[in-house]
Amino acid sequence: MDLIDIFKTKNIGDSVKVEGWIRNHRKQKDFGFIDFYDGTSFKTLQVVYDKDNKNFVEIQKMLVGCAIEVNGTLVESQGNQEYELKADEITLIGTCDETYPIQPKRHTREFLRSVAHLRPRTRLFQAVFKIRNLASFAIHDYFQSHNYVYVHTPLFTTSDCEGENQMFKVTTLDLENIPKSEGKVDYKKDLFGRQTFITGTGQLHGEAYAMAFKKIYTFGPTFRTENSNTKTHANEFWMIEPEIAFCDLKGLMDIEEEMLKSVVSYVLENGHEEIEFLNSFVDNTLKEKLEKLVQADFVRITHHEAVDLLNSSDINWEFTPDYESDIAKEHEKYITEYYNAPVFITDWPKDIKAWYMKENSDGKTVAAVDLEVPGAGELMGGSQREEDYEILLARAKSKGVDVDSIDWFLDLRKFGTCYHSGFGMGFERLIIYLTGIENIRDVIPFPRTPGSCEY
Amino acid sequence: MDLIDIFKTKNIGDSVKVEGWIRNHRKQKDFGFIDFYDGTSFKTLQVVYDKDNKNFVEIQKMLVGCAIEVNGTLVESQGNQEYELKADEITLIGTCDETYPIQPKRHTREFLRSVAHLRPRTRLFQAVFKIRNLASFAIHDYFQSHNYVYVHTPLFTTSDCEGENQMFKVTTLDLENIPKSEGKVDYKKDLFGRQTFITGTGQLHGEAYAMAFKKIYTFGPTFRTENSNTKTHANEFWMIEPEIAFCDLKGLMDIEEEMLKSVVSYVLENGHEEIEFLNSFVDNTLKEKLEKLVQADFVRITHHEAVDLLNSSDINWEFTPDYESDIAKEHEKYITEYYNAPVFITDWPKDIKAWYMKENSDGKTVAAVDLEVPGAGELMGGSQREEDYEILLARAKSKGVDVDSIDWFLDLRKFGTCYHSGFGMGFERLIIYLTGIENIRDVIPFPRTPGSCEY
Repeated sequence: MDLIDIFKTKNIGDSVKVEGWIRNHRKQKDFGFIDFYDGTSFKTLQVVYDKDNKNFVEIQKMLVGCAIEVNGTLVESQGNQEYELKADEITLIGTCDETYPIQPKRHTREFLRSVAHLRPRTRLFQAVFKIRNLASFAIHDYFQSHNYVYVHTPLFTTSDCEGENQMFKVTTLDLENIPKSEGKVDYKKDLFGRQTFITGTGQLHGEAYAMAFKKIYTFGPTFRTENSNTKTHANEFWMIEPEIAFCDLKGLMDIEEEMLKSVVSYVLENGHEEIEFLNSFVDNTLKEKLEKLVQADFVRITHHEAVDLLNSSDINWEFTPDYESDIAKEHEKYITEYYNAPVFITDWPKDIKAWYMKENSDGKTVAAVDLEVPGAGELMGGSQREEDYEILLARAKSKGVDVDSIDWFLDLRKFGTCYHSGFGMGFERLIIYLTGIENIRDVIPFPRTPGSCEY
Repeated sequence: MDLIDIFKTKNIGDSVKVEGWIRNHRKQKDFGFIDFYDGTSFKTLQVVYDKDNKNFVEIQKMLVGCAIEVNGTLVESQGNQEYELKADEITLIGTCDETYPIQPKRHTREFLRSVAHLRPRTRLFQAVFKIRNLASFAIHDYFQSHNYVYVHTPLFTTSDCEGENQMFKVTTLDLENIPKSEGKVDYKKDLFGRQTFITGTGQLHGEAYAMAFKKIYTFGPTFRTENSNTKTHANEFWMIEPEIAFCDLKGLMDIEEEMLKSVVSYVLENGHEEIEFLNSFVDNTLKEKLEKLVQADFVRITHHEAVDLLNSSDINWEFTPDYESDIAKEHEKYITEYYNAPVFITDWPKDIKAWYMKENSDGKTVAAVDLEVPGAGELMGGSQREEDYEILLARAKSKGVDVDSIDWFLDLRKFGTCYHSGFGMGFERLIIYLTGIENIRDVIPFPRTPGSCEY
């Protein structure tokens, strides 16, 4: 029986059988205690045995990390647990070599990254990856209960409208011996017959489905070639990209706010023990921060207003805020601290934003919105999309997009076009926010970063 | 308001506002009917207007495919619908060009593949992709409610233990001008500093997490380089790979059976209208087949027994069944028809199965299981995994696996190893089964097959 179900349904006096691993083992001359876990519950169960156990000597040799089966009865606990397990039988299922690196002591996260296949067994990573799991499901649950259709957009693409240098190339050709034709790579011999990339977004395909189902979302792995070794960059990560027909920028902000609150609430409710642990050992402002977010009224200001706010402060900015430029990390921090709440910043200068965003009537800004969250920075980025065929075509051309390769995308503006909006949320950024963990390498099971694709 | 919520909560006499598209438009001299849909409900809403509408002339010009907003009152329907919408106002949101290929008539699926960005607007593909969505959520829902942790295993790998010719290569190098060092590709200049592939399975990484959380599953895109243009092959598809610690082959079959029944039940309950439609227009045995599966007792036979069964029949097999060989499509069909139920075939000859499967005590077979389902063939494939370090190492070496690149995987057998099992289910195969659609190209939003990576 899973430990989590035992905690939910079993009481003192009940007989139970559990299978799992030894987290800690304290031995006395005539008895012993095993901290037992099976990974289904964040809580461990204390197993007690003594000389009445016929394999007492064997049990005492069981090391931390061993896999065991325990049969016994739940009895009143001497400690602060609800109960403990008095073992009738403890059977060794799998030994654990003495070199086992996960010992009951504090390991550095850097060290644990070097044993990425074993680190999920630590309390810290049990908490992190359980919360990752909870947040995944909370996202699906939110969108499903609001009539969205989950769409699996393709990763492979032969269109390089994102700029081929920002995408990974995929091929079945032998790189040691690339076939050439007239001095160029002969892609006719490649599996798809053309040069193929891994796309960095499902938005364009998502829009096609939003024009059929009204509300859709994607949730899948995403790739960036960025050669950047920072705490917040990984080359492989997961992303959520909802797209909603008949939705303007205001409607989009309503959705973003509702969705985020719903996910945070779900995690607080279902990951109570994990959050408590992280609050104690990683960031003691975590729980309060999350509880506050659920209650907060998100602020909505324009980029213009944000720049005015920044310029009205006494701070000597490293990057001087202005109406034509992006907002720097220092600015994000100031703004969220000023309002002490999540802040939507809308209506950004068009030259620093993507070609598919809808231009505002001022001719200078686009209907884009970034959500800045205290302690996390930019968590979501979205926009209303340009729905007019001619305007979108002109915008794409002016940005050097190969419009032939996206004729199908432009088609969406010919056949029943409508105002519509969408946003993207980097899933790892959300997990960093939900756990208080700072480094993206510690919220991805097996992270891929420049120079590092181990395991 | 979403159409699905109107159908759920609104009654005759209620005022409503809807936004969506025109599926069909029948005009009379003094009035007209619009088949209105927004994609949130499979049902359409009939909108009625007449000369009292001040833009009557304009409305009559609205073509199939136009995006509109309708304000009106729900009134009793003349037809067999619960109600229809008497329009006070119909506003054009987006025009639709006359060349719109999705007209209210029957289109061939081949033609619809050539407009993959528009085909989700047809009734057929609304049904298929809604069921794909429902099945996705049903899978998450099943595993979440049974204490599994959803794990995002990486797609990029530098280990070629699957055989590099079966994996796509990924690179940031310029293929036109590959840097070389001593005559070989200089992968030091590639982003990860080594040759990198896209893995075809998350199983190995999944096992590492099963040894921490007991029960895990993956659900993500998967890639195969197979140059095979058949109805059942795609180069990019989605796969589910659960992995369960302290679970033997029998336990695995219990889980597979329970999970499949749970998913089919969910789809039948929540995709009622879509299933009815597919049953009427695609495969009139569909509904009965699915309802039967939920009630069925899945049969469990060994490969040996299956071969005996095949040989005891009068059929002149194209492939003669024998104890050492795989089972052909004709055999699968016979077996599921013979039992008239899903059949688990267990204990396969070890030479035709993977190196990580647990060898049975007979020395000839492994603890593998394939699930054969009437009308779908093999739907899941799984096995108990070899949990002994030395045996696994020897098996890997004997199959030519580069064991250095999977030392971390072998480690799992050193530190608290336990009997454990897992299976893989191709998600598209499930959708083919759930919809009665035969071609994998018609159950993937934008399919990627050899020579074809459009959109």
